[in-house]
Amino acid sequence: MTIGILGGMGPLATVDFYRKLIDATPAAHDQDHLPVVVWADPTVPDRSAALTGCGPDPTPWLIRGAHRLEALGAAVIATPCNTAHAFLDRVRPSVRVPMLDMIDETVREIRTRHPEVETVGLLATAGTVTAGLYQDTLAAAGFKTVTPDPVTQEDYVTRAIRRVKAGDLGGEPARWIEEAAGQLAALGARLLVAGCTEIPLLLGEMCACLPVLDPTATLARAAVRAAR
Amino acid sequence: MTIGILGGMGPLATVDFYRKLIDATPAAHDQDHLPVVVWADPTVPDRSAALTGCGPDPTPWLIRGAHRLEALGAAVIATPCNTAHAFLDRVRPSVRVPMLDMIDETVREIRTRHPEVETVGLLATAGTVTAGLYQDTLAAAGFKTVTPDPVTQEDYVTRAIRRVKAGDLGGEPARWIEEAAGQLAALGARLLVAGCTEIPLLLGEMCACLPVLDPTATLARAAVRAAR
Repeated sequence: MTIGILGGMGPLATVDFYRKLIDATPAAHDQDHLPVVVWADPTVPDRSAALTGCGPDPTPWLIRGAHRLEALGAAVIATPCNTAHAFLDRVRPSVRVPMLDMIDETVREIRTRHPEVETVGLLATAGTVTAGLYQDTLAAAGFKTVTPDPVTQEDYVTRAIRRVKAGDLGGEPARWIEEAAGQLAALGARLLVAGCTEIPLLLGEMCACLPVLDPTATLARAAVRAAR
Repeated sequence: MTIGILGGMGPLATVDFYRKLIDATPAAHDQDHLPVVVWADPTVPDRSAALTGCGPDPTPWLIRGAHRLEALGAAVIATPCNTAHAFLDRVRPSVRVPMLDMIDETVREIRTRHPEVETVGLLATAGTVTAGLYQDTLAAAGFKTVTPDPVTQEDYVTRAIRRVKAGDLGGEPARWIEEAAGQLAALGARLLVAGCTEIPLLLGEMCACLPVLDPTATLARAAVRAAR
């Protein structure tokens, strides 16, 4: 079964997801891998700007991409952009194939792998935070979510994400994320969700002494399960 | 203009190419990047096996992929698999969009950047070596090519490529390539061509004290030039 990747949000995050998809596939030869089609449309308007009331609605672009992937034979669609998930409920009715939900998959993984955690720290775009994407799903599963204060969000998290989108994977944006993570640890977080696909590009498995959960990798495993 | 990637040969090499495409694109935001569509069909029969008389002709699969990319709006197609280039002359007539030639682009780059070199060492699949893909183009440009002896080709180069295709980017396959590179240096090579897209995944900018030219990166720059 072919996996469709609705990508380009951003491009490096799409590459990271594709790489994690390959890592999640047991394969000894090229021919053991899963067929993949990628639609990476960089003209999709900024998802976070739309959610914070500062830009156009990206839904029509997402629908167009999902259509293209379906026409190419994708049997399941993965969207490696957390913020785009705020719009997916309006995209799903326009295609016949399932679109995976990385927020649901991530919360399911937290419930399975970290049931002892009470408070989760969320590192994400301002749009994802404002829309409550993770907070609502985590609350329904019995978890409390803490987020950075608005200044830390803007000056550290949003700025680091912007740097990655411009190709900077250096130490400075990684330090900003570490700074924000330290604040979440002080607020009681015992687990961090790298809830923007640019953030795992800056982090390892731990940050500010907390374990980091990578929704990109979670989505990749879910896509491989769905396609096999 | 949209770049079409005829990929999956192998999947990790496709990811590497996509990453190098992004690196070659001047961009500060998601929206500055080029639209990309990827068709990664792992069922394409082994290209090297076909060229050494041990497997089916992959041309129909390549034509199918090129058609799909054209239908998706690709204005130029890049094929990040050196060995597949042996079949591209039979694929090109089936699409109206140009298909870039990574062998030609690489030899052009050698002529520009390394005009002082007389002998080039080729690290590639047995299929690429047997078909003379690089040797013929390099000879036409005035360069001599040296290749590993058949045992080194099989036990070091081919085996290392196979390991990468199985996801092993560890020290052992890298050492095998270094071993083969040492042989090419002893045969007079003053520059190495990492002429199989799996090989740059194992090497840096130098190997066995020789500079390494990476056709994947060359193809990425050519694709960005063609699309802008």
